[in-house]
Amino acid sequence: MKVINTIKELRQGLKKERQAGRTIGLVPTMGYFHEGHLELMRRAREECDVVVVSLYVNPTQFAPSEDFESYPRDFERDKKFAENVGADYLFCPSNAEIYLPNHLTYVEVEKITKRLCGASRPHHFQGVTTIVAKLFNIVMPDKAYFGQKDAQQVVVIKKMVDDLNFDLEIVVVPTVREEDDLAMSSRNTYLSDAERVEALVLSESLQHAKRLIDSGERIAQKIKDEMQELIESKPQVNLEYISICDNRTLEELSRVQGETLIALAAKVGKARLIDNIVIKM
Amino acid sequence: MKVINTIKELRQGLKKERQAGRTIGLVPTMGYFHEGHLELMRRAREECDVVVVSLYVNPTQFAPSEDFESYPRDFERDKKFAENVGADYLFCPSNAEIYLPNHLTYVEVEKITKRLCGASRPHHFQGVTTIVAKLFNIVMPDKAYFGQKDAQQVVVIKKMVDDLNFDLEIVVVPTVREEDDLAMSSRNTYLSDAERVEALVLSESLQHAKRLIDSGERIAQKIKDEMQELIESKPQVNLEYISICDNRTLEELSRVQGETLIALAAKVGKARLIDNIVIKM
Repeated sequence: MKVINTIKELRQGLKKERQAGRTIGLVPTMGYFHEGHLELMRRAREECDVVVVSLYVNPTQFAPSEDFESYPRDFERDKKFAENVGADYLFCPSNAEIYLPNHLTYVEVEKITKRLCGASRPHHFQGVTTIVAKLFNIVMPDKAYFGQKDAQQVVVIKKMVDDLNFDLEIVVVPTVREEDDLAMSSRNTYLSDAERVEALVLSESLQHAKRLIDSGERIAQKIKDEMQELIESKPQVNLEYISICDNRTLEELSRVQGETLIALAAKVGKARLIDNIVIKM
Repeated sequence: MKVINTIKELRQGLKKERQAGRTIGLVPTMGYFHEGHLELMRRAREECDVVVVSLYVNPTQFAPSEDFESYPRDFERDKKFAENVGADYLFCPSNAEIYLPNHLTYVEVEKITKRLCGASRPHHFQGVTTIVAKLFNIVMPDKAYFGQKDAQQVVVIKKMVDDLNFDLEIVVVPTVREEDDLAMSSRNTYLSDAERVEALVLSESLQHAKRLIDSGERIAQKIKDEMQELIESKPQVNLEYISICDNRTLEELSRVQGETLIALAAKVGKARLIDNIVIKM
């Protein structure tokens, strides 16, 4: 595995791969790898000739009040993981390599970035789409891999790809969970033992919603109310939102129908956690 | 020359060209070709193996009050011109081909799009950068050709290319002028004979500025005042702005220095005309 820090060097390497007719898979990450990241890499490894993992904690998707500084980082550990899983290139640029001192250009996806997590993180998705567009232009992958854990990110990036005619396929990989069903997240490291136990209510509430729907419930508000009651029984879990929405437009639904995303966000101690399930009717 | 209406068909054609190792030059246009457009195509023809001319009057760069509907169009004439100059592909998509019914994504370049023409056309450059980003992703050219006539557009697109890491070169081609020095523009067709005579004051005022600078004047305001006086002597020419600014940041200069852009816009009858010169000190 080659560890590469500059755009120029990465492009030179990938140009040769492309000229040799090899397909390229990109796994964009912010590092501190867990099984969720590794699943993305394994899937890319299966489907593409060349696997590029980018590791960059992108400052423009954090608000000043958020955890950019404290976001967990462990390069040596990440490097071993990526190498073990068979990545070919680990691209770890500096901030100066990615953002010119007078950077002025942003990719903005309207409407769907303002809902769900966008309501409390108004500039987050502009940071995400901008860095992902840059990575797409740098790597020019055939396929790019994202986790379903970040459901809204998936919807937003797919929309950007369609709207801006990026010539690549977005592959969405199922959420990887701990044995007790907590969705894997680099931010789980922020949780105390007691917080971690209470955080299980998030996936439990989603499973409860699924059971309600399986037993015939369709009224979104009733499902949300029961989820909220469950979550509020845990004093250390501060619910930010529950959304039951169309999985393409992210518009709130009054009744569960079509491809429905049930998504939530909550603060548990210092960690802002998200989780979701998709129900196909 | 192949005339192509769909993104899919264009991509199929260009994929083969690229696999054969041919370089691709893109000339993005809104049609109604004049010598300015043809110069872009000739330059692309000289420098690239494959010349793609796009012909698309992009609605998102016009405000509702502007001339999208009346913008001059003559497909058969344009087709002949492009063919005669040796273009390989003429890409003429419909609006439905370019914008999905629920298009939500825009490329926004901050600050430099708000100055000069951006002051009176606040959404214009967002429309330009979005369509150009789309064309770059569709065509994936090695080089793309733009006219110096649209000086601010050149600065904005170069900035977008740098900030979003598009892997291509922007080639800027000098403004082509009529015999009497009027900058060529598809919008010149809007001018009556009398208006056309008065419109000559625009290039004259730029030449006057150049003479002042050649004879030692450096104070931007003095140069602007003399230009304005000249222009205001023509009752049918309604000056919108004169800018003397840095040709990279578009920041107004108090003194002419470095690479200086002298740019202006004026309404003459129904036509909004722009012109500029660049002075290198």
